[in-house]
Amino acid sequence: MALRFSSTGLMVDDKNSLHFPLSFFDCVLRGVGQVMLQNNSYTGLLFLIGIFYNSPLFGAAVVLGTVVSTATAMLLGVDRALVRAGLFGFNGGLVAIALLYFLQPDLLTWACVVFAAACSTIFMAALLNLLKVWNIPALTAPFVFTSLCFFLATARFGRLESTHLLPTAGLPKAVTVEGLVTASTVVEGLFNGIAQVFFQGNVITGVIFAVGLVIGSRLACVTALAGSLTGLLVAWGMGAAEPAIRSGAFGFNSVLVAIAFGAVFFVVDRLSIAYTLLATIAAAVVFASVSAALEPLGVPALTLPFVLVTWMFLLASPIFPGLARRGIS
Amino acid sequence: MALRFSSTGLMVDDKNSLHFPLSFFDCVLRGVGQVMLQNNSYTGLLFLIGIFYNSPLFGAAVVLGTVVSTATAMLLGVDRALVRAGLFGFNGGLVAIALLYFLQPDLLTWACVVFAAACSTIFMAALLNLLKVWNIPALTAPFVFTSLCFFLATARFGRLESTHLLPTAGLPKAVTVEGLVTASTVVEGLFNGIAQVFFQGNVITGVIFAVGLVIGSRLACVTALAGSLTGLLVAWGMGAAEPAIRSGAFGFNSVLVAIAFGAVFFVVDRLSIAYTLLATIAAAVVFASVSAALEPLGVPALTLPFVLVTWMFLLASPIFPGLARRGIS
Amino acid sequence: MALRFSSTGLMVDDKNSLHFPLSFFDCVLRGVGQVMLQNNSYTGLLFLIGIFYNSPLFGAAVVLGTVVSTATAMLLGVDRALVRAGLFGFNGGLVAIALLYFLQPDLLTWACVVFAAACSTIFMAALLNLLKVWNIPALTAPFVFTSLCFFLATARFGRLESTHLLPTAGLPKAVTVEGLVTASTVVEGLFNGIAQVFFQGNVITGVIFAVGLVIGSRLACVTALAGSLTGLLVAWGMGAAEPAIRSGAFGFNSVLVAIAFGAVFFVVDRLSIAYTLLATIAAAVVFASVSAALEPLGVPALTLPFVLVTWMFLLASPIFPGLARRGIS
Repeated sequence: MALRFSSTGLMVDDKNSLHFPLSFFDCVLRGVGQVMLQNNSYTGLLFLIGIFYNSPLFGAAVVLGTVVSTATAMLLGVDRALVRAGLFGFNGGLVAIALLYFLQPDLLTWACVVFAAACSTIFMAALLNLLKVWNIPALTAPFVFTSLCFFLATARFGRLESTHLLPTAGLPKAVTVEGLVTASTVVEGLFNGIAQVFFQGNVITGVIFAVGLVIGSRLACVTALAGSLTGLLVAWGMGAAEPAIRSGAFGFNSVLVAIAFGAVFFVVDRLSIAYTLLATIAAAVVFASVSAALEPLGVPALTLPFVLVTWMFLLASPIFPGLARRGIS
Repeated sequence: MALRFSSTGLMVDDKNSLHFPLSFFDCVLRGVGQVMLQNNSYTGLLFLIGIFYNSPLFGAAVVLGTVVSTATAMLLGVDRALVRAGLFGFNGGLVAIALLYFLQPDLLTWACVVFAAACSTIFMAALLNLLKVWNIPALTAPFVFTSLCFFLATARFGRLESTHLLPTAGLPKAVTVEGLVTASTVVEGLFNGIAQVFFQGNVITGVIFAVGLVIGSRLACVTALAGSLTGLLVAWGMGAAEPAIRSGAFGFNSVLVAIAFGAVFFVVDRLSIAYTLLATIAAAVVFASVSAALEPLGVPALTLPFVLVTWMFLLASPIFPGLARRGIS
Repeated sequence: MALRFSSTGLMVDDKNSLHFPLSFFDCVLRGVGQVMLQNNSYTGLLFLIGIFYNSPLFGAAVVLGTVVSTATAMLLGVDRALVRAGLFGFNGGLVAIALLYFLQPDLLTWACVVFAAACSTIFMAALLNLLKVWNIPALTAPFVFTSLCFFLATARFGRLESTHLLPTAGLPKAVTVEGLVTASTVVEGLFNGIAQVFFQGNVITGVIFAVGLVIGSRLACVTALAGSLTGLLVAWGMGAAEPAIRSGAFGFNSVLVAIAFGAVFFVVDRLSIAYTLLATIAAAVVFASVSAALEPLGVPALTLPFVLVTWMFLLASPIFPGLARRGIS
C-alpha cells in the first residue's frame, strides 16, 4: 500500500482504485474514518457500527451526508486521490448528524442535510485553497461553519424547528461541585468523550469507536484515550459541572487534538509529547471559552475548539526547529 | 474599448483617460456602477437616478461618499487603472448611504460620512493586498466593516444618534405565514430585492436599477432578477415572514451573488449555472444566519452574506477543474 | 549597535549576546519595552518601575509572564535574534497582568498565568508564520486572544473567580456630558491613556512610562502623547462619558497606533503624518465599536482595536506608493 502525504498534510492513499460501486463505498467508509483523521475503511465501518448501535437515525444521517458530499466532489471533478482518501466525506457526514441532532427530523431537515452536505464540499475546497499557503489542513471547519449557519437560520426560517437541545447547547455555569466527581464520572466521561466526536452520548459507542481506532492505528487509540482523560481532568480541576464532565463535553475536542498531534502530524519524541499535552489542555480551555462565547446565540461550540487549537499549534510548529513534522522531508 | 481583468478579478478599463474634471466625474459614476460589479458610467448614472427618485438625501449621500473615497485614493497615489474603474468608489458610496439610513442626518453624521468614506479607501487597499494571494476581489467588505464599526460605536458615543431603524435591523422570527404570500409579495419582493442593494425599499427604483443593469450587460440584468427571485423563493419555502420577503431583505445578497457568478467571474455553461444557483441559495440561508447572529448587537447584516458566500465559492473554484473562470489565461 | 529589521517589521538587535543570566534578564526587560514597540532594556526597566509604583502585584505579574513566555520560546528553540529582541516576551507580560487585573489573585490564577504565558509564545509563533506572507507583525494579538479565552472560560470553570471589574469591562452608554469635561479630565486622561497600555489607571505611572519612552526614542514619546490626546479629543467630540475619557480608556489604543505609525514603521514626512493621524482617530472609533461588540459577553476590548487598525493600515500601505516604510530598501 503506497502512502503519501497530500498538500493538506493528511494521508492520501495512491493504491489502485477498486471498481465502482465498491470504490465509492470505500470512499464513504474512509470519509467516516477521517472524522478522527483515520484514512482506513475498517475504522470507518466500526465508527458506523458504533453510531447505529446508539441510534439508527444518526447512522442513516451520517451515511447520507458522507455519500452526498463525496458525490458532489466527484461531480465537480475534484482530484481523485483526495476523494478516495475520504477527505471530501467526513465534513458532510458530521453536518448531517449535527442537523439531525439539533433539528426536528422532518422532510425539510433532510432536504437541508442534502444541501448542507453539498455546501460542505464547496467549503472544503475553499479551505484547501486558502490554507495551502501555510500547508495546514481544513480539519472539521467546513462542518462547524455550515452547521452553525443552519442553526442560526432557524431564528428567521419559521419552518426549521429545533429540538429541545439547541437552546441549552451552552452548558450551565458550574457551582463548585468537585466532591461529586466519582469513579463512574471518570470512566463514563472517558468513553463519552470519544463518542461525542459524533454527538453520541453512549459509553458502549465510545468503546466501539476506540476499537475502530485500534484497527487504524494503536497509537491513535492510545492518544485518543489520553486526550479524553486530559480534557476531563482539566475540567475537573477548574471546577466544571459534574454532568458536563460525565457527558464527555470537555473531552471530544481534546480527543481530536491528541490524535492530530500525538498520532498524525508529528514524529513521536519527548518534545512532541510535551507539545501535544499543551495543545490538549488548551483544547479543554478553549472549549469552555467558545461555548461561553456562543451561548448568547444559543448555538453549540461543536469541534471549533479542535480546529482553532490545531491550526494554531500547526502554524506555530515551523518556528520551533525541534519539532519534526511527518511527511515533510 | 480595451478591457482587461485586474489582479482583483474585476474589470479594468485601459482606454485613454478623459481630462479632469470629466475624468473624475467618470470615475465616480463607474464607482456607483461597481456596487453591482458594473464598470460602466451609464449604469452608474441610472443607479443614481433610481436613488434620487426615491430619496434626494440618499442620492446626495452616495455622491458625496463616492467622491470622497475616490479622491482619497487619488491623493494617496493608487494605481490609476484601479481608480478609473471605480474600484475605490463603490465602498465609499455604500458607507455614506448606510450611515444616513441608520443615523440621524445631522452635521456630525455628515462628518462621519467623510471620515468613513476615506477609511473605506484604506480598507479597500488593505484587502487588495491581503486577497491578492488567492486572486479574489475585496467586494463590498470595506463598506460592511466600516459601517458596522460606526453603528456599534453609537453605544459609546452619546452624540451619534441612530434612526429608529437600527434596533430593528434584525428581522423578527417568522411564524408560519406561507398563506399570506401573494402575487404582489413576489412582484414587489423581486424588484425591492434589487433596490435594497442600495437600501432603497422602492419598486420603481428597483426597475430603474434593472434598466441600468441592461445597459451594462443584459446577462447581469437577467441574473440579477433570477437571483432576487431565488432568494425570495428560498425565504418563502423556509417559512420566512411575509413582510421581510416583500421588503426584498432576502433578495439583495442573492442578487449580488447571482451577478458575480452568473455574469462576471465565470464563463457561462451548464456547470457554472449549477454552481451559481447553489451559491445564490446559500446567500439567502447565510443572510438568515448573519442577521440572526448580529441581532444581539442590534446591527444589520448589510451585504456581508454576499461577501462571505462569494469569497467561499471563488476560493473553492480552482479545486473544481470544470469551472472556467474568466480572464485567467 | 547593529540594528536590522526582522521579517516581522520589528527591530531586531544583532549585537553579541551577553552571558546568561544577564542576557536572559536583558531579554525580559526588552520584552517589557516591546509592549510599546521599544527594543530597549532601559525603557523596559522604567515601564517596570512605573508598574511597581502603582501596584507591586501587577509588577510581579508582568515579570513572571515575561519570564515564562521568553523561557518557553528558548526551550522550543526559537531563533535567538527574535527572543533577544524581546519579541517573545511582551505578550506573556501583558497576559499575566490582564489575568491578575480581572481574576482573583489565588493559586489557580497564578497557575493560569504560567500556562497562558506559555500559550502566548505558541500563539506568537503561529502569527509570525501566518503573517509573514504579508510582512506584517503580530503585535499584541497573542495577548488579546489568550486573555479573552480565559475571561470567557470563567463562565464554565467554577473555580476561576473574576474580580468585580470584568462584568463592567464594557463602559456605560454616554449621555451627552460634554460640559463636565474639564482641564483635569484632559491632563489625567492624557497620562492615564499611556498608563492604561499596562492596565494602570495612575497618572504618575503614565508620566514614568513617558520618561521610559523618551529614553527609547524621543519621537516615540511625542507620538505617544499626541496619540493619547487625539483619542481623548475624538471621544470628547463624539460625546463619550467623562469618567471613561478621564480613565484613559479611549487613549491607550491610540497611543500604540501613534507610536507604531509615527515612530516605528514609516519614515516621517507630511504624508505619513496624515496617515498616522487618520489611523489614530480610527483607533478611538474602533475602540468604541469593539468594546460595544464585546459587551454582551462581559469581556473587555483590550488592545484589539490597536491590532486591527494597525494591521489594516499596514496591509494597505504597499498600495500607496507615497508612503515609505522603514527598513524595506
